[in-house]
Amino acid sequence: MDDYWLRPIGRVRSHLKQRHEAPRQGRPAGVEAELIIDKAVKKGLEGIDTGDKLFALCWYHMADRQTLRVHPRADQSIAKRGVFATRSPDRPNPIGLCLVDVISVKGTVLKVRGLDAVDGTPIIDLKPYIKALDT
Amino acid sequence: MDDYWLRPIGRVRSHLKQRHEAPRQGRPAGVEAELIIDKAVKKGLEGIDTGDKLFALCWYHMADRQTLRVHPRADQSIAKRGVFATRSPDRPNPIGLCLVDVISVKGTVLKVRGLDAVDGTPIIDLKPYIKALDT
Repeated sequence: MDDYWLRPIGRVRSHLKQRHEAPRQGRPAGVEAELIIDKAVKKGLEGIDTGDKLFALCWYHMADRQTLRVHPRADQSIAKRGVFATRSPDRPNPIGLCLVDVISVKGTVLKVRGLDAVDGTPIIDLKPYIKALDT
Repeated sequence: MDDYWLRPIGRVRSHLKQRHEAPRQGRPAGVEAELIIDKAVKKGLEGIDTGDKLFALCWYHMADRQTLRVHPRADQSIAKRGVFATRSPDRPNPIGLCLVDVISVKGTVLKVRGLDAVDGTPIIDLKPYIKALDT
């Protein structure tokens, strides 16, 4: 099958510097971070406001793309299962999906709560959460 | 910024053959389709069962990647807004996010309900829906 190319639309700025510091999942931990969006796509942010819920799609650039089975939540006591049945960052296309709350928007910098990605992680897309679609 | 490459993990098989036939959004319309997953990543499906809710991430290969502002739901009466504040397929990285219900799993073929992608659309990832993370 054909490959496709992804171009990051920005980067995460976070006090989480290494993968082992990142919470297993961002939302319950309520980690705050900034999405530093590329000025070239600034127009794409029009309409995003404080208080919005967004899906932030990241690219886990440090993930292992060969992994197909993992222990869920890295818990050795749980039997391994397929990566597509888990939220492991290790997977063939290491896309992270995090639902975040927008705390503020200043130009191309979005401050958000609930992101489990480390500093420097590429951001590849943002989408509004729409209850009728996403529940 | 660096580009990354994506390799599809499968394709959509659907009676929707062209983009204009696709519903604005898949879930309310309840469209049934099949996810034909590549046998090379079959192990990644272990643990996915009938009745599961999954996010299916697709690559809208026919989308316009230059578009930064659109009329939401293609409704000309609504003012244009940034693509990151909409679910438009036209966006810099044309990833589609659809929450689907798994109707059956037979080998590497997942029959699902709620997908708005046309026949042949590349599938790039599958993730379980986890209420504590995704609401």
